[in-house]
Amino acid sequence: MNAELIAIGTELLLGYTVNSDTVYLSRVLAELGIDCYHHVTVGDNRQRLAEAIRTALSRADLVITCGGLGPTVDDVTLETIASVTGRRLLLNPTILRRMEARFRCLKIAMPKTNVRQAMIPEGAVIFPNQTGTAPGFMIKRGQTLLAPKGSDPLRICLLIALPGPPSELIPMVEKHLIPRLRQYAGKTVIHSKTLKVVGLTESAVDVKVRDILALKGKVTVGIYAHPGEVELRITAKAASAAAGEQLIGAVERRIRKRFKGLIFGADEETLEQVAGKLLKRRHLTLAVAESCTGGLIGHRLTEVPGSSDYFRGGVVAYAHSLKSAFGDVPARMIQKEGAVSAAVAKRMASGIRQFTQSDLGLAVTGIAGPTGGTKRKPVGLVYIALAGPRALQCRQFRFSGNRSAVKLKASQAALDMVRKTLGV
Amino acid sequence: MNAELIAIGTELLLGYTVNSDTVYLSRVLAELGIDCYHHVTVGDNRQRLAEAIRTALSRADLVITCGGLGPTVDDVTLETIASVTGRRLLLNPTILRRMEARFRCLKIAMPKTNVRQAMIPEGAVIFPNQTGTAPGFMIKRGQTLLAPKGSDPLRICLLIALPGPPSELIPMVEKHLIPRLRQYAGKTVIHSKTLKVVGLTESAVDVKVRDILALKGKVTVGIYAHPGEVELRITAKAASAAAGEQLIGAVERRIRKRFKGLIFGADEETLEQVAGKLLKRRHLTLAVAESCTGGLIGHRLTEVPGSSDYFRGGVVAYAHSLKSAFGDVPARMIQKEGAVSAAVAKRMASGIRQFTQSDLGLAVTGIAGPTGGTKRKPVGLVYIALAGPRALQCRQFRFSGNRSAVKLKASQAALDMVRKTLGV
Repeated sequence: MNAELIAIGTELLLGYTVNSDTVYLSRVLAELGIDCYHHVTVGDNRQRLAEAIRTALSRADLVITCGGLGPTVDDVTLETIASVTGRRLLLNPTILRRMEARFRCLKIAMPKTNVRQAMIPEGAVIFPNQTGTAPGFMIKRGQTLLAPKGSDPLRICLLIALPGPPSELIPMVEKHLIPRLRQYAGKTVIHSKTLKVVGLTESAVDVKVRDILALKGKVTVGIYAHPGEVELRITAKAASAAAGEQLIGAVERRIRKRFKGLIFGADEETLEQVAGKLLKRRHLTLAVAESCTGGLIGHRLTEVPGSSDYFRGGVVAYAHSLKSAFGDVPARMIQKEGAVSAAVAKRMASGIRQFTQSDLGLAVTGIAGPTGGTKRKPVGLVYIALAGPRALQCRQFRFSGNRSAVKLKASQAALDMVRKTLGV
Repeated sequence: MNAELIAIGTELLLGYTVNSDTVYLSRVLAELGIDCYHHVTVGDNRQRLAEAIRTALSRADLVITCGGLGPTVDDVTLETIASVTGRRLLLNPTILRRMEARFRCLKIAMPKTNVRQAMIPEGAVIFPNQTGTAPGFMIKRGQTLLAPKGSDPLRICLLIALPGPPSELIPMVEKHLIPRLRQYAGKTVIHSKTLKVVGLTESAVDVKVRDILALKGKVTVGIYAHPGEVELRITAKAASAAAGEQLIGAVERRIRKRFKGLIFGADEETLEQVAGKLLKRRHLTLAVAESCTGGLIGHRLTEVPGSSDYFRGGVVAYAHSLKSAFGDVPARMIQKEGAVSAAVAKRMASGIRQFTQSDLGLAVTGIAGPTGGTKRKPVGLVYIALAGPRALQCRQFRFSGNRSAVKLKASQAALDMVRKTLGV
């Protein structure tokens, strides 16, 4: 079975909205082992939408449209699908009642225009909308008298219409579409796993695995760079999820051998989650003293639910005078060594550790730019220190990129210092 | 002139990569007044790419492909375009020399496979690549002997190929494509301006401007919601930029009248920039005491270059005991009122102001969830206080959404309190 996705909306053609529905649906189809050969986007225009649906039905077994199911005159999907498939639009009383109930709940009178959303092509299977008004639906070809001329009468052909807003589309797909598509899904499942590398540039990662990146066949590996981390995505085509995992496992072991501790996690895992897990497992607490990162490390640590178990808080010593006031850094030291120095970073780390009575104190001082750099201390120079009960370590970094990138890379290196110190 | 965009890459069809090139190019075309009716994505497949290019050339005056110009066998754009347009691929010695020089600079031997990237369809205009190896190019139809049968011989038809990585595509478009397209651009320019509203939900904004959102014709207004802010985008079609601005100005004034101070900025402006500008203009300094936001407010303030002029830093008092240690909040007060209370927020705000000797002290305490809520103090309850030389204000909020959303909305409300207090 192969699929084609049609996104509908003039705002997409104008570049106002990112086509996130297509990204999401592509991943869903890949996981089901359904190949997708075309993505198409058209505006809110009946003629061009009709043409796109006809073309898609002629070359794909599964056609999914997203968007254009709203209550306004701009929304042309219902009428166009009805016309292309030669079906009447019938008022569905169940959907109408559900919509009326929804509006009662919101204490708003239902606008008359919304009634259109309860008109569904004859014979369609309805996907209820849990989070909005417009239902989705599925038309199975073969039920229709108007199959395209010359088409294989045994060929299964599905046309599915989904609402555009991701908050409506995603729950509908999870609950209604995926279970139905499983029965049509291919024998080949596409399975993938992403390994996340920290502390190396993209080219340094590339050099280490160039032979693996060149793999062809059932398993392939791609490389993707983000500020402060590089992803290696292993993708396998296999007859079952188990077989796919086995194929991935073999390549994963080869990759892990070359990077050892530089791989901090997989898939959706973040460095703050990994560092947090290690702190929790060891019953340790952490406090931070941030200068150039401005609060970003604390922000990232507290994105993780339950972080109050190990994160105590800290200080943002942005002004130099606050480094003395908060961080127990003598003004003389700042004068002599400079605010951006190993000595100050170490003093901030041990100072915050002591003051907050935490097990670990993490400190960052640096120059995020774009101004404030000198020849001896250029933009991107960052010192990161970690104080523990026994040891006090400090490392110097030189990060590239703009202000945001330097901040992000510094927070990444700081969290990674915690991870490495606590071991894996 | 109307355009069609073709994105090339199997990773796009698998949903691994967001199609950001298409979003960027759509905006560029809209600003030039060039209508775009179709976006198409195909994989690294010669046959399907050839079919997509042929279809696009048959219905659009300007066809732009992105991607598939790399040095590997997966990259099929060059050969496919040559074959569809009936042109030979010729080795361009200038490009080859430039590529060789680039590799010398990087101190890497140029792989033989890269030579392919210097093969360009005969007669094409070359767009040099400032940030990578693969050049882009433009083929003007009419120069070719193989114009599609039955096509209007006077019709201008441009086929443009651009590299996929945004870091290569964007500089190439800015430097080479936009100046060339200006001569073909339509008489109608699409102009837009986004007004940003803070402190109201999407439905509250919708109610206030429903009549304006229903506008049809030369000026239209769209509504887009983000956590903590709602955007109203005014779009005008006009014969010139000046005429577009005039049309937008009239609608903007109508909208501003209804929202008054709730509109904090326009287009790319952020709330931290606006708050920062006001602080700078008034020569005031700010310090923060953050609890549930964990450092996010400091992080956002320090994303703005030059923020050290007004932002002094602050504390992240995540653990209750730190609220006493840092924020001068008596332990008795926390016991009696609770850590999430107006009394504690106020004390944190005046405490941080005094301790850091700042003009303003901003404090946030709340429950970000998912745990930690009670019936009396549910998840999403947040108190925000701002202490100044004369006044101390505090407001209670109830934010919806997950942990990240509550944090973001709290930071938004806190920065907005600074903005409103400093007046506009």
